[in-house]
Amino acid sequence: MAQINDNYLKLKAGYLFPEIGRRVKKFAEENPTARIIRLGIGDVTEPLPPAVIEAMHKAVDEMGQRETFRGYGPEQGYDFLREAIAKHDYQSRGANIAADEIFVSDGSKCDTGNILDIFGLNNLIAITDPVYPVYVDTNVMAGRTGPADESGRYSKLVYLPVTAENNFTPDLPTQKVDLIYLCYPNNPTGTVATKSTLKKFIDYAKANDALIFYDAAYEAYITEADIPHSIYELDGARDCALEFRSFSKTAGFTGTRCAFTVVPKTLTGLAADGARVDLHGLWNRRHTTKFNGVPYIIQRGAEAVYSPAGKQQVKALIQFYLENAKILCAGLRSAGLTVYGGVNAPYVWLKTPRNLRSWDFFDELLSKAHLVGTPGSGFGASGEGYFRLSAFNSRANIEEAVERIRKAV
Amino acid sequence: MAQINDNYLKLKAGYLFPEIGRRVKKFAEENPTARIIRLGIGDVTEPLPPAVIEAMHKAVDEMGQRETFRGYGPEQGYDFLREAIAKHDYQSRGANIAADEIFVSDGSKCDTGNILDIFGLNNLIAITDPVYPVYVDTNVMAGRTGPADESGRYSKLVYLPVTAENNFTPDLPTQKVDLIYLCYPNNPTGTVATKSTLKKFIDYAKANDALIFYDAAYEAYITEADIPHSIYELDGARDCALEFRSFSKTAGFTGTRCAFTVVPKTLTGLAADGARVDLHGLWNRRHTTKFNGVPYIIQRGAEAVYSPAGKQQVKALIQFYLENAKILCAGLRSAGLTVYGGVNAPYVWLKTPRNLRSWDFFDELLSKAHLVGTPGSGFGASGEGYFRLSAFNSRANIEEAVERIRKAV
Repeated sequence: MAQINDNYLKLKAGYLFPEIGRRVKKFAEENPTARIIRLGIGDVTEPLPPAVIEAMHKAVDEMGQRETFRGYGPEQGYDFLREAIAKHDYQSRGANIAADEIFVSDGSKCDTGNILDIFGLNNLIAITDPVYPVYVDTNVMAGRTGPADESGRYSKLVYLPVTAENNFTPDLPTQKVDLIYLCYPNNPTGTVATKSTLKKFIDYAKANDALIFYDAAYEAYITEADIPHSIYELDGARDCALEFRSFSKTAGFTGTRCAFTVVPKTLTGLAADGARVDLHGLWNRRHTTKFNGVPYIIQRGAEAVYSPAGKQQVKALIQFYLENAKILCAGLRSAGLTVYGGVNAPYVWLKTPRNLRSWDFFDELLSKAHLVGTPGSGFGASGEGYFRLSAFNSRANIEEAVERIRKAV
Repeated sequence: MAQINDNYLKLKAGYLFPEIGRRVKKFAEENPTARIIRLGIGDVTEPLPPAVIEAMHKAVDEMGQRETFRGYGPEQGYDFLREAIAKHDYQSRGANIAADEIFVSDGSKCDTGNILDIFGLNNLIAITDPVYPVYVDTNVMAGRTGPADESGRYSKLVYLPVTAENNFTPDLPTQKVDLIYLCYPNNPTGTVATKSTLKKFIDYAKANDALIFYDAAYEAYITEADIPHSIYELDGARDCALEFRSFSKTAGFTGTRCAFTVVPKTLTGLAADGARVDLHGLWNRRHTTKFNGVPYIIQRGAEAVYSPAGKQQVKALIQFYLENAKILCAGLRSAGLTVYGGVNAPYVWLKTPRNLRSWDFFDELLSKAHLVGTPGSGFGASGEGYFRLSAFNSRANIEEAVERIRKAV
C-alpha cells in the first residue's frame, strides 16, 4: 500500500499568501469598482534590464543553430556564470570564494529547501521569528519538527524572536542547535545585520559545530557602507556557513529564474560513525542527481547582469525600488506609524496602529484603503502586531498607497 | 553538531557517466589524434525547432517591456502550457487528463526524484533492472534502501529483470510492493510496453493499492501504432499511476529545460492513521513550497512545440534521430551483433560479442573504434553483457560509427 509522507499533514493548511489571495478575491468581488493596490507579495514589477534582454536574444539564436546549440550543460552552472559570480559578488569584496564553490540553481526558495536533503533528520534547527515561511515548511515536510501549536509554532524548532524590543537582532540560541537560518537584509522586517551580529553567530557556530544557512537574496539593496553583503566578508564564515543568493530581486528575475548557493570546500558535517564528511561533495551529488541545470539562455541573461551596462541598469532598478521604500517610510511616518526597514531592503515593516492584530489591520487596510499588505503574524508568532509592505510597484502606485494610508489610519 | 544524511554514504562512488568521462579523457590524452565519436550519454545534437526559437524571442521581448513583463508565475505552470499539454498529449489520444492535473517542471530527472518527497520512507520500491540510475539513487538518498552488494544491488529494493530471456518484459513482483517505476519506451533498452503488459501492471497496482511511476520521456519516438504513448490510454490508470514527460528528447530541450508530471486528482495514498490522502494536493503543496515555476520564456518555447509548425518541426527532428537508430541497428546486425530497441526509441541495446563483460566491450570499442557507448551493467546488474548506443548524433557520425564497429568486431 502506497503510504504518504505523514509529515505533510502537520503543515498548517492556510499558507499565508493563499489566505491573502482568498480575502482579496472576496473583497474584489464585493467591491468591483475598487482599484486595489497590491504591496503584499514581494514580486518585482519593472522589466528586465536591456543588457539581460540582449544577452538572452543572442542565446536564443545560438540555440537555433547546430554549431552553437547547447544540450545538457554542467548541472552546477556554466563556468562563464560561476566565474562572473565569484569575481563580482565575492572576490571584489574581499571574500575568498572560488567559482567551483558556486552552484547555480533555479531559485533560492528551491535551494533553501533542497539543501536539507544532505542533512540528517536529527539536527536541531534554529530560525528567527518572524521568518520566511519556506524555511519552516520544508523542515516540517522533512520530518524535523513535531506538530504546530495554536500560535503556529512547531515543536522541535528553536525560535529566535526579532522584534522592536531587541532592535530586530536575534539573541544566540540558549540551547545547542545544529543548523541556523539567517536572512539579511531580512525578509520580512527589512532590517540588516551588522558585522558584530554576524560575528556573534559565526563564533557560536564554530564553538558548537553548527552551520549557518545565510540567505542574502536582498544584499543588492544594502545602502549603508559598513553592512556586509556576504557572510564571507567575515573571518571564519568559510568554516561554518553556506550562502544563498538570487537574481530575482536584484535583476528582476522572479519570472526568469536564476539563483545560486555557495558551498565552501572547507565545510564538513558529522557522519553517524563520527567521520567528518565534505559538504561540497554531498551537495554536488545531490545537485547532479536531482537537478539538470538552469537553461543556457537564462544563464546568459544572468551573466549579463555583471557586464558594465548590466551593472548600471541593475543599480538603477534597485535605486528605483529603494526610492519607493523611502517614500513609503516617510509617508507612513507622517501618518503617525512606527516604521522599520526600508533603508537597506525593499520591505517596510510597521507596527500596527492601536495595537491591532496583524490580520485585523490587513482587513482594515483592505476595506478602507483598498490596499494589500502582508500580516506580520503570517511570518511567525513574533510578527503579531506588525505588518509588511513591499516597495515593489510603480511610483504612482506607491505614492497613491501613501495617500490612502494617510487617510485610512 | 551538524549531522549529514548518512544515506548518501551508501551511494556507489563511481556513478556511471563520470566513470565513462574519466576513461574517455584518459584515452583522449593518450591518443591525441583519435577522433572520438560519442554515442554514450543520451543528449540531443540538433538545434531547437524554429517555432520554439521564434516564440522565445517574442517572450524575451515581452520581458523587456513593463506592460508585458512577468514576475512570479504560477508554480504549476502557466495555463497556456498546461492546456496545450492536456489537449495535444492526452485528450487527443482519448486519455482523460485535465490541465490542472499537469505540473510543469524543469525536468523529469528532478520530478522522478522529487516525487518521493510526498511518500513515506517505508514504501517498498520496485524497479526494472537495468534501469535509469536516478530512480535508484534518489531512493538511496532518501533512505528507502539498505547498502549495496557487490553487483551494485541495494537491499530493500525489488529488482524486476528485463533481459532477452523475458523479451524485455518485466514479470510482476512476487512480493507485495508499494511503488513501481516503469519507463517506456525504455531507457536503456529502447524496448516498449504493449497494452497487455501495462494492463498487467495496472491490475497489480489496483489489487495491491500500489502506485506506478510511469516515465514516458521518450513517447514521441513510438512508431508502432498499437503501442500506448501514455499509461492513461489504459482504463484504471487514473487510479494508480503518475506520469512523467519531458520536452528534452522530444523537442531538443536538454539544455532548455522543461518537463511535466501528471498527477490525476483521483489518486490517493495511505496516511499512518489509515485515512486516504489526495496525492494531487500533496504534490501541489510540495511543488509550490519547494519550486518557483519554469521561466516564462521557456514555457512559451514549450507551448510552441504544439503549434502546427512546431509539431511538424518536432516530428522531423524525431524522424531524423529514428533514421539514425535504424542505420545503427542495420549496421550492427550486418556486423553480426544481436540488437534490440531502436525502432520506437533513440536507443539501441546490443548484446556484447563473445559474451564480453559490458565494461570490457566499452574499453574495446573505445580503443579499437574510438567510439563511446554506455556499458549495460552501469544501468543495473541485469544489464551486464549488454551495451547501449544512442542515436543522438549527426548522420555523418552515425554512419562512420557503423563503419568503425564493422571493422572492430
